[in-house]
Amino acid sequence: GVLGSGDFARSLAIRLVCSGFKVVVGSRNPKRKASLFPAAAEVTFQAEAVKKADVIFVAVFREHYSTLCDLADVLAGKILVDVSNNTEINHHKESNAEYLASLFPACAVVKGFNVVSAWTLQSGARDGNKQVLICSNNQEAKRTVAEIAQVMGFTPVDMGCMSSACEIENIPLRLLPAWKIPIFLALGLFVCFFTYNLIRQVIHPYIREQKNKLYKIPIEVVNTTLPCVSYVMLSLVYLPGVLAACSQLYYGTKYRRFPDWLDQWLQHRKQIGLLSFFCAALHAVYSLCLPMRRSHRYLLIDTAVKQAVEKKMTIWVEEEVWRMEIYISVGIIALGLLSLLAITSLPSIANSLNWREFSFIQ
Amino acid sequence: GVLGSGDFARSLAIRLVCSGFKVVVGSRNPKRKASLFPAAAEVTFQAEAVKKADVIFVAVFREHYSTLCDLADVLAGKILVDVSNNTEINHHKESNAEYLASLFPACAVVKGFNVVSAWTLQSGARDGNKQVLICSNNQEAKRTVAEIAQVMGFTPVDMGCMSSACEIENIPLRLLPAWKIPIFLALGLFVCFFTYNLIRQVIHPYIREQKNKLYKIPIEVVNTTLPCVSYVMLSLVYLPGVLAACSQLYYGTKYRRFPDWLDQWLQHRKQIGLLSFFCAALHAVYSLCLPMRRSHRYLLIDTAVKQAVEKKMTIWVEEEVWRMEIYISVGIIALGLLSLLAITSLPSIANSLNWREFSFIQ
Amino acid sequence: GVLGSGDFARSLAIRLVCSGFKVVVGSRNPKRKASLFPAAAEVTFQAEAVKKADVIFVAVFREHYSTLCDLADVLAGKILVDVSNNTEINHHKESNAEYLASLFPACAVVKGFNVVSAWTLQSGARDGNKQVLICSNNQEAKRTVAEIAQVMGFTPVDMGCMSSACEIENIPLRLLPAWKIPIFLALGLFVCFFTYNLIRQVIHPYIREQKNKLYKIPIEVVNTTLPCVSYVMLSLVYLPGVLAACSQLYYGTKYRRFPDWLDQWLQHRKQIGLLSFFCAALHAVYSLCLPMRRSHRYLLIDTAVKQAVEKKMTIWVEEEVWRMEIYISVGIIALGLLSLLAITSLPSIANSLNWREFSFIQ
Repeated sequence: GVLGSGDFARSLAIRLVCSGFKVVVGSRNPKRKASLFPAAAEVTFQAEAVKKADVIFVAVFREHYSTLCDLADVLAGKILVDVSNNTEINHHKESNAEYLASLFPACAVVKGFNVVSAWTLQSGARDGNKQVLICSNNQEAKRTVAEIAQVMGFTPVDMGCMSSACEIENIPLRLLPAWKIPIFLALGLFVCFFTYNLIRQVIHPYIREQKNKLYKIPIEVVNTTLPCVSYVMLSLVYLPGVLAACSQLYYGTKYRRFPDWLDQWLQHRKQIGLLSFFCAALHAVYSLCLPMRRSHRYLLIDTAVKQAVEKKMTIWVEEEVWRMEIYISVGIIALGLLSLLAITSLPSIANSLNWREFSFIQ
Repeated sequence: GVLGSGDFARSLAIRLVCSGFKVVVGSRNPKRKASLFPAAAEVTFQAEAVKKADVIFVAVFREHYSTLCDLADVLAGKILVDVSNNTEINHHKESNAEYLASLFPACAVVKGFNVVSAWTLQSGARDGNKQVLICSNNQEAKRTVAEIAQVMGFTPVDMGCMSSACEIENIPLRLLPAWKIPIFLALGLFVCFFTYNLIRQVIHPYIREQKNKLYKIPIEVVNTTLPCVSYVMLSLVYLPGVLAACSQLYYGTKYRRFPDWLDQWLQHRKQIGLLSFFCAALHAVYSLCLPMRRSHRYLLIDTAVKQAVEKKMTIWVEEEVWRMEIYISVGIIALGLLSLLAITSLPSIANSLNWREFSFIQ
Repeated sequence: GVLGSGDFARSLAIRLVCSGFKVVVGSRNPKRKASLFPAAAEVTFQAEAVKKADVIFVAVFREHYSTLCDLADVLAGKILVDVSNNTEINHHKESNAEYLASLFPACAVVKGFNVVSAWTLQSGARDGNKQVLICSNNQEAKRTVAEIAQVMGFTPVDMGCMSSACEIENIPLRLLPAWKIPIFLALGLFVCFFTYNLIRQVIHPYIREQKNKLYKIPIEVVNTTLPCVSYVMLSLVYLPGVLAACSQLYYGTKYRRFPDWLDQWLQHRKQIGLLSFFCAALHAVYSLCLPMRRSHRYLLIDTAVKQAVEKKMTIWVEEEVWRMEIYISVGIIALGLLSLLAITSLPSIANSLNWREFSFIQ
């Protein structure tokens, strides 16, 4: 049974029909809404629909849950599936599913299917994320809904009891939470190092020698800033592991929880590492672009002309030649190794490595 | 039960035996073929094999289906699994499974396992694609076959009733269908822009000033063509979304189907975007190669010599310097952002993003 | 039931409790260890725990298996799950699970869960590898354990009978086995070609003309070595396929096993190909870095000065110009195509291609 006649209710009914279930849709205005649903689904009044079904998907906004209270008697003993989503994280004190359970204490309420979009339901689960997170206090009801999800082509994931409902409802609302701190960290470091390099390479020569080097800002200053950010970020990836080991040695136990800040830090290592790689890769591209610039060309020709006029050949400074050759050579090797690390952090590759292989690569 | 003694029948029998099933193979010449099958599988005459089995895999070519008609009585009431593939898309009017069902109306025919190769069956489903697409008009038979697939280590995907059989049979024959239009589009755009740039950069100077610039064709002309293609493709990614929104506003409803051309276009956006990124990345590599060329070197030295002879220093054109610095700088940033888009289109990463995160990145 | 009180036993108990199972933990010192386990799990003496449970996870080191022999009577008829790992590949003659089965012939022993880490158990199976490889001689027991794994959120994979236990126990210990031969091959080729190029580009000019070209070692010699390695590796990817086809034609059958060396070679093609791509990509980066070097700058200016002093313009050698343009142009196209091959070898993309598409791209 499906209660509601919105987009999601419609897609759910289509999918259930396709998977071979008998579907009955409960609507307050069955005549007007019947055309929206597939022909194989029976569209009728809510009370009637509820009577005929054992598992009822409540595809209704939280605000309208109370309008279902008239059906409390018919609903008693049945399985209610709460598929609702919120518009803000932690909008209400209790999750929608817990609220529904409090309204219908005689029903077995299961939270689920909210992470699936109406579009995924309609187009089938062959592509995209197929996980359906499910939680409930009633083990029997949870298992029934998990089986329905499986037949529909989804992968049910048991998230435990109803207290996880809040977490499940927040999932479709989250916006890259693991990336926020690392990105602000990278931006902060970038601003600091950029300011320092700007003063050193542009402002200082201007004040001291009145030389206008403003043209260096878009490429050269950025290019000296990026590796600094990359280095600091890379060290921040490996530092918390050392701190954690120290803490374990100090307290002499593995079972003591790390302080919150260290725990957070340990969990963001992957993101910090990827940003470090991103900066390093940008640095490589910027460096490769240096000889393409007009200013590079001007300076090169000028040096040649100056030396030709003075009929003086270049002084071949062996040390400078070697410094540059080694700098470039080590840079390429470092970038190559960092790329391997970045590639192994792709989910599909990380999943195919065991722990020993992963730590070997690290 | 397995009918047939080809490659697929053999691999199927091996896999079924490994998964703990009792297997009986039906062959027209059991003595000669027995050596091809694992020892644990019983190889006998077709009629006898069919009697002993409840689920029968028909690993026989469509052309030989009619030879099984003698077994119709013994087969009645059993589950037949059609595992066959065609050699051409939509080769026959009706799918193989529907044809089999029409020959044996007393059997429950299930389409399935055709997307799995003999090699995957033998080597186990740990790597590679593990989905087995299944369809049937008989829900009970479909569920039985799905359970067998699960025990064999595959992920059964319910594709609905028998009318999907044709679609399932076409899957192993398809050749990147989503890429055809975008690739021809990109090639067409490339040819147009290449011709235009060839005329402007090579043919025009030759006619007007008799200058031979043919050497520019392999790199410079290509390099000015690629970003044009990339830009147009990128705009073609975002244009249909705008058109779709306009169409919805105009008709005032979300439930009206888009015209076919718009629907097709919307579905090819990902491929068009990836080709746009590919062109942009090639443009970056071509640009980086410019200072490596012999011609670049010759022109540079010549300018230096000319100026040295005239004892004239370079005129530092501030505007040209800035234009180049900003061009390169913006180009790198654009490529970096486009790379992020390309990375998030990898299936394993796209699956880990929710809708809100995906649209944020877009 | 869980026997043992180590890290793994603890994580297992936590996960089982979270998945809604009743858990009883058997320890030799239940009072001291109780605090380590979740409150919902009952911690008691081993004999008592075993009596209450039907499925018993033996989270004990192999060395201590014999200490459980006192419990043989109570254990009779129950399912024992061996979750143990070894510290070395093929450390013991028989696998741990087979050893356990020999100690308790009256129990149904199932091997499983050893590929899952304590951390994955605790943090839930939403990320990372969710496969649990299971094997047993008792089909009924295997199915029970597979169901438990499924409810815990893992994907059980049936590996057949107990003889696979050894293979399953080796999985967490393997260290990129498929990469060892290809990497040593690449290193060997690199050393050979590097030596050859070193002699040609550095040692030979020094001996003949006393010219010190040592600065060429870190970049130029490496850069001429990489494409040689890449080429040879690429040819080694496609050679074994040809050999295999020849062997099949020669023997006139598809069912004859290839000789072992050819089989090994065929299985390492993907890794050899990826290393070939890695060398090609490094070669591209090295080449792009050439104009950035100080030595390049010195040589360029010197040529300009020399020509200016002699008041001689450069001789534009059309052939050299074309050679370089075509070399770069073909190089970029080759790298672009090789990148496509490398991208399609990512597991998540390879899984979405059918056989026809894969061979088309190859």
